[in-house]
Amino acid sequence: MAKLVLIRHGQSEWNALNLFNGWVDTKLSEQGIEQAKHAGELLKQEGIAFDQAYTSVLTRAITTLHYALEEAGQLYVPEEKSWRLNERHYGALQGQNKADAAKKWGDEQVHIWRRSYDVLPPLLDNYEETVEVQGKTYPAFDARYADVPYGELPLGENLKVTLERVLPFFEAKIKKDLEAGKDVVIAAHGNSLRALVKHLENISDDDILNVEIANGQPIVYDLNADLSINDKKTLK
Amino acid sequence: MAKLVLIRHGQSEWNALNLFNGWVDTKLSEQGIEQAKHAGELLKQEGIAFDQAYTSVLTRAITTLHYALEEAGQLYVPEEKSWRLNERHYGALQGQNKADAAKKWGDEQVHIWRRSYDVLPPLLDNYEETVEVQGKTYPAFDARYADVPYGELPLGENLKVTLERVLPFFEAKIKKDLEAGKDVVIAAHGNSLRALVKHLENISDDDILNVEIANGQPIVYDLNADLSINDKKTLK
Repeated sequence: MAKLVLIRHGQSEWNALNLFNGWVDTKLSEQGIEQAKHAGELLKQEGIAFDQAYTSVLTRAITTLHYALEEAGQLYVPEEKSWRLNERHYGALQGQNKADAAKKWGDEQVHIWRRSYDVLPPLLDNYEETVEVQGKTYPAFDARYADVPYGELPLGENLKVTLERVLPFFEAKIKKDLEAGKDVVIAAHGNSLRALVKHLENISDDDILNVEIANGQPIVYDLNADLSINDKKTLK
Repeated sequence: MAKLVLIRHGQSEWNALNLFNGWVDTKLSEQGIEQAKHAGELLKQEGIAFDQAYTSVLTRAITTLHYALEEAGQLYVPEEKSWRLNERHYGALQGQNKADAAKKWGDEQVHIWRRSYDVLPPLLDNYEETVEVQGKTYPAFDARYADVPYGELPLGENLKVTLERVLPFFEAKIKKDLEAGKDVVIAAHGNSLRALVKHLENISDDDILNVEIANGQPIVYDLNADLSINDKKTLK
């Protein structure tokens, strides 16, 4: 039996501004920092002693993990970061205001991009394409992706593609820890976590779109030896 | 050619209170947080892009690394923690006020414990011995040391013993990164870093005792392929 805890990062600066965030490396807002610390308090109350932590290579998830672990008194837990736990890549929508995008492409189209399982957003032309919005450069083929084979980096993703690139990391690393009985925490993003939840709970392509994962509210899975779910709860 | 950067953690709560700290897991003071952020600004100005980060399993070093990397815009750098990078274990002196210790054992004896290379401090009786000082429990054979073979945990160390337990980690991990040309940052402690400096610069047992490493001032080594030192500077 192992525990798996999923934490969606606290509110980011761009969540607060209603911008498509994706792979752009924004920071937590003040509210987001408080949410991350609160998640740590909840984990401390729950009394889980983690053996391993995972997070993405994006600052808002990494800092969420750090604030939560520090609050839980477990900052010493080994941590591994992977681009495969990054948020869904929102292609050419990244950095756009959600309301402006709706005006430009229509409410229905933007709703489809946000909420369909397998429709891709407008893609970037290439990895080197960089646009500066609000002082942030994106999508930034930057140093943090230097070890990723060039063709594996996305130019834009739907949830299906997000799941396909999250899964190899889950299988190679996280699943092995859980099978070894280790208690694991993953601090990541709305869509990379939604992909994991879909996989773990065997949720259909349609139903997963209605699953919302709240910022900073840890989801605690109590897993059986075969990684089937014995119990699930959300800490608030 | 590789760069190796050493950062001593910012001021801790117990540095501020003039207590022997050692393995007791204290946090950074407000001043310590500012020192850590400033170290990150200095690294950003220096323009070093790290490939790998190392730190101890003690919160004051881990948070120093995190603040510095975030300030440098490199929080995504892979990080590995090891007890072998911990501060010198101060045995039964941990948690004592330095002035009180001088009254109890005499100035000269305390000076010898603090500044001799190979005289051990009063040892703890066993790993389970815990004493609570200022709301902190120590030395705490706690979860973070669960994977360390029982006999390898110290009951008290001098600088010589500290060096002996730092070195295997340096040889097994850090040296290999440097030989592969990776730029490495280590956030650790006054004595674990002094041990590394002694090793890197081949400093004598006597002379190393006069080497002071300031909180939050990165030491940047520019290393040749054989890890001999091409250049060294301290950022302030």
